[in-house]
Amino acid sequence: MADKLRIGIVGGAGYTGGELLRFLSSHPLASIEAVTSETLAGRAVADHYRNYDLPGTLAFTRYDPREISDKCDFVFLAKPEPDSFTQVRDLAGKTRLVDLSANFRYADAGDFERAYGVAHRAPEFLGRAVYGLPEIFAPEIAAAPLVANPGCYPTAILLAILPAARAGLLEGSICASAVSGFSGAGRTPSEANMAWALVDNLRPYRVGAHPHSGELEEVMNRRLEGGNYRFTFVPQVAGFERGISAVVFAPTRRDVGEEEAAEVYREFYRETDFVRFLGPGRQPEIRMVAGTNYCDIGLVAASPGMLVLTSALDNLVKGASGQAIQNLNLMAGLPGRTGLR
Amino acid sequence: MADKLRIGIVGGAGYTGGELLRFLSSHPLASIEAVTSETLAGRAVADHYRNYDLPGTLAFTRYDPREISDKCDFVFLAKPEPDSFTQVRDLAGKTRLVDLSANFRYADAGDFERAYGVAHRAPEFLGRAVYGLPEIFAPEIAAAPLVANPGCYPTAILLAILPAARAGLLEGSICASAVSGFSGAGRTPSEANMAWALVDNLRPYRVGAHPHSGELEEVMNRRLEGGNYRFTFVPQVAGFERGISAVVFAPTRRDVGEEEAAEVYREFYRETDFVRFLGPGRQPEIRMVAGTNYCDIGLVAASPGMLVLTSALDNLVKGASGQAIQNLNLMAGLPGRTGLR
Amino acid sequence: MADKLRIGIVGGAGYTGGELLRFLSSHPLASIEAVTSETLAGRAVADHYRNYDLPGTLAFTRYDPREISDKCDFVFLAKPEPDSFTQVRDLAGKTRLVDLSANFRYADAGDFERAYGVAHRAPEFLGRAVYGLPEIFAPEIAAAPLVANPGCYPTAILLAILPAARAGLLEGSICASAVSGFSGAGRTPSEANMAWALVDNLRPYRVGAHPHSGELEEVMNRRLEGGNYRFTFVPQVAGFERGISAVVFAPTRRDVGEEEAAEVYREFYRETDFVRFLGPGRQPEIRMVAGTNYCDIGLVAASPGMLVLTSALDNLVKGASGQAIQNLNLMAGLPGRTGLR
Amino acid sequence: MADKLRIGIVGGAGYTGGELLRFLSSHPLASIEAVTSETLAGRAVADHYRNYDLPGTLAFTRYDPREISDKCDFVFLAKPEPDSFTQVRDLAGKTRLVDLSANFRYADAGDFERAYGVAHRAPEFLGRAVYGLPEIFAPEIAAAPLVANPGCYPTAILLAILPAARAGLLEGSICASAVSGFSGAGRTPSEANMAWALVDNLRPYRVGAHPHSGELEEVMNRRLEGGNYRFTFVPQVAGFERGISAVVFAPTRRDVGEEEAAEVYREFYRETDFVRFLGPGRQPEIRMVAGTNYCDIGLVAASPGMLVLTSALDNLVKGASGQAIQNLNLMAGLPGRTGLR
Repeated sequence: MADKLRIGIVGGAGYTGGELLRFLSSHPLASIEAVTSETLAGRAVADHYRNYDLPGTLAFTRYDPREISDKCDFVFLAKPEPDSFTQVRDLAGKTRLVDLSANFRYADAGDFERAYGVAHRAPEFLGRAVYGLPEIFAPEIAAAPLVANPGCYPTAILLAILPAARAGLLEGSICASAVSGFSGAGRTPSEANMAWALVDNLRPYRVGAHPHSGELEEVMNRRLEGGNYRFTFVPQVAGFERGISAVVFAPTRRDVGEEEAAEVYREFYRETDFVRFLGPGRQPEIRMVAGTNYCDIGLVAASPGMLVLTSALDNLVKGASGQAIQNLNLMAGLPGRTGLR
Repeated sequence: MADKLRIGIVGGAGYTGGELLRFLSSHPLASIEAVTSETLAGRAVADHYRNYDLPGTLAFTRYDPREISDKCDFVFLAKPEPDSFTQVRDLAGKTRLVDLSANFRYADAGDFERAYGVAHRAPEFLGRAVYGLPEIFAPEIAAAPLVANPGCYPTAILLAILPAARAGLLEGSICASAVSGFSGAGRTPSEANMAWALVDNLRPYRVGAHPHSGELEEVMNRRLEGGNYRFTFVPQVAGFERGISAVVFAPTRRDVGEEEAAEVYREFYRETDFVRFLGPGRQPEIRMVAGTNYCDIGLVAASPGMLVLTSALDNLVKGASGQAIQNLNLMAGLPGRTGLR
Repeated sequence: MADKLRIGIVGGAGYTGGELLRFLSSHPLASIEAVTSETLAGRAVADHYRNYDLPGTLAFTRYDPREISDKCDFVFLAKPEPDSFTQVRDLAGKTRLVDLSANFRYADAGDFERAYGVAHRAPEFLGRAVYGLPEIFAPEIAAAPLVANPGCYPTAILLAILPAARAGLLEGSICASAVSGFSGAGRTPSEANMAWALVDNLRPYRVGAHPHSGELEEVMNRRLEGGNYRFTFVPQVAGFERGISAVVFAPTRRDVGEEEAAEVYREFYRETDFVRFLGPGRQPEIRMVAGTNYCDIGLVAASPGMLVLTSALDNLVKGASGQAIQNLNLMAGLPGRTGLR
Repeated sequence: MADKLRIGIVGGAGYTGGELLRFLSSHPLASIEAVTSETLAGRAVADHYRNYDLPGTLAFTRYDPREISDKCDFVFLAKPEPDSFTQVRDLAGKTRLVDLSANFRYADAGDFERAYGVAHRAPEFLGRAVYGLPEIFAPEIAAAPLVANPGCYPTAILLAILPAARAGLLEGSICASAVSGFSGAGRTPSEANMAWALVDNLRPYRVGAHPHSGELEEVMNRRLEGGNYRFTFVPQVAGFERGISAVVFAPTRRDVGEEEAAEVYREFYRETDFVRFLGPGRQPEIRMVAGTNYCDIGLVAASPGMLVLTSALDNLVKGASGQAIQNLNLMAGLPGRTGLR
């Protein structure tokens, strides 16, 4: 039997930390060695997550870089305090890292700063970070010291357009709208995630100004060669907890037939573990992916010169923690699905 | 005091019939003379709609064209049995009509048949029907013998783009996605409107194939002069009962500044009763319009050459019955807001 | 035409203040003269409540007792700052008051203090306050200088049991469970009213310890003569915004037949404006009362010696602001339904 | 390694069949040999349940008793066609059975017929059926040829009262109200499970007349010795998919202190796998048990002589399919938690 992977989670008290523990508790090769939380330090992890089968001896600890690097081979940075800049500087080279924040998703510090409006405080690691979308960067992820886990919206939108884009079918200005469950806003109380502001409601926010727009252009135009796409992205939030449903309007270079395009998608996703192309005639829906690491994709040649690609995923799983574990599996040389079904 | 308007509703048992009665019960000049329902005939209307202040003497009747035309000056056709083709042929010229179905929204029978896949059985009335969007066709509505009440999605999308389009700012291929509450599917039991298929879910349907796409092109390219727009429209359904939230990606002829565009919208909607332009920086949301006849509009110059217009309305009110009463008011020479606040 | 009632609202920014304004904006005899809010002072009221037809000239003001008593004949105290003790002391005798807080629902300061754990700071007014449940105290309300508007849960439970209790059918220990929408917790952000804590959830709280238990005993055993009931009350909160559904298990003195009991209820509520006894065989449900001032009642002789009474109302309307306006109507000598349908 | 258990599911297309497959797909010792569905016969099971890790070779088959008894050691009867009377007569003695229907929950055919109003068509098997509540009948379940899997409401209510009842603390007339998610009504389209009838709503149904009342009395007064309890039970349905929250009002023989009662519960549930007694001061809530086989229990000594017991469970898991697998584990001599965390 393979050796166990010694795992740490820095920032284990939030939504994404909880989802990491949910999957790791049934991962056959994961041994959870450390879970940090500045607010829950000292409490038993099994007591906080009573529905998962966690070892009774595991307690939340305060973040201590020495302890983490001694105990762990792989560490997830899940919204840690104060931020992942600090942890990456502390831990890089000593453990292999999957960062669930946005801090290392851009290759260039200036691009990051334009998108987020804050200084990048560990630019020397940008060159080593690999963008953790397994469907295109699996070989790089396998060898990476630091994986930048993708944003939830970019995962949904990239998986919807990549096959067509890589096949050279698309060009120009891509428009996307996506509706997210309220877990995307985290658990910290605020006006925005009060029940009265969400239930029976739907509202756009940060229209054209969400930093995930920049992440889309970063991946399509810089991490992948030769792209020259422009994205207009409209996120919306709704009154359900989990899931993203994305609609992408993608202009084509020429008039592309639905079956031709569908064949491109079938081929592209034939070997993947978690992307299900539903083919013409079926549309993805959130309830079919909630709680899972799947991303479902639909395709319609809606009008001449325009493909409509649709996708659905669970923002906390394929959009965050599930994808992070998929990346861990690749880094450890395991099958991508290990512990994820 | 003005004379009462003698009102009939053909098809009073569904969602839209109920909403008509909700507003008419407090309309100061409406006298409800007849409400038909083939299934509820004989029952007291006040007993079926116990929350509205309806006269105790009013009972549902089976549809009888002679009785309706004798008793009523204005008649709403609200999903009547068998269909509004029949009623329009029976009643046109004897009463003035507001048809809430799609049957008279196209000027040309062939266009209707292409959109809906059924024969048009009263084409001789198409030329007399006025498209009932008060924000652009108020004078024509005032004089109309037959008003074709607009679709819910087209109302949301047209109100979002009309000011920019009429100012000559837009061109080309317009993409729109919109999320509707499940009341859009009516009350008749089916797999599609079961709770388990809707709650905590969101799904696209009829992508690029919804007949409301054709209605958008009909209005923009034929009822209004000189348009040459193409629409790609993606409707989605969610787990709340009421409301539509629409996102429209509208390419501009030239790079239009946000403030310049906003001024166009402010001016266009300055005198309207029910459209509220929220201006740059605020986004419409469903909970602010649910139950009302308002349509709220947002605008962002999201990227060079691309305006994002957003709108929210209640699909049963401004998207159906409220707009129908607004049309009644115009036809009767009353202020548009009568009975609607 | 009758003179207008000059109305003030102290505390106009919360849920109950908003609902008061929703109804008063279409109340034919109400003239809103003052609306206070310490946080919104200076803003136009019509701008904050854009869906109601409010006079454009009305602005929120800071609470000024002199100004209120000069301008208003009737004043609603709707969760005012700092509290209604202060306002009652300032305004009693100068205007007539409807207090939506719990401060004057008990006749005895000690009972209040036991229930709420805080000192009563205006005990000299307790003797003058009338408990504002129109279905039993209409004559007293008509003459009252100060009406203590009932709690939402007690309204639902009292209306369910009063006919049986007044007819001498009940005795002993009454058990009640009730599920409330989350608007009962107000709009101030907290862990308890976050979307993730409420959506797809249901949870009991303050089991056996909610101060509304004491309010039930106060009304049944002290404000009404001769009662000797004990209440065990379990409130629960769910993921919808509005409404209370209550289930009451009421032991009977003797084995009471369902039809006999039903006749008692029909008779008791024959002349009331807002209580609808649904009779054996039909159960109340929240969606039939949401947004209205109705309380629907069901009755089943479930087992020998045990009646099950069920009720549904909107906690913000019949459970708060609608009932407050019903009380205003009685105080002003108007029909109870004025402005409420 | 232990031999695999050869498992069959008769009726695999509904909610409970789906949940059985969800758990069995990750059960380390289960080998699914047959899944029947009259409507899906011929389709791949893995294609219908795409989120679970099911063998690609497994297809739905029509029910064939010979095939089932040849292939399977243990068979779940999950709402089979035509009904489990037929299957029990076909299969009893050839395989061991867990019946998820109500058909074998009563020891006496007359009691069954009074509760359900239909004839019992396999009364000769009633004497051999064991009531499958592991927390009290584990030894009998271990040896049973046929397990009658408990109803969802009785599971929630029995687990809430059993410790107090077995300790002799309770007597007399027990009142319970419980709110269920809409999955309790199954997936077949009807007025009752339409979205518009459920979302933002709550309604009691079958008040005092639900057959689960009889099941409670059957267990407490006949399957357990010496009981003489009477139950008044009010089920309600709400707009979430999964979960039951129950409130039980239980009169005590004498005035029982909260800590004394709590100690009884702690002791009773100390060794159980899936019941978590939360102790005084904490209340169960649906979101903490949804998707799991846990039942959480709260206790408050709410008033003299009255305990309030509360419980929450997932009606499809501990209230149906999870409990069925727990019973399978006991029948097979496995730890109760196998495959359930």
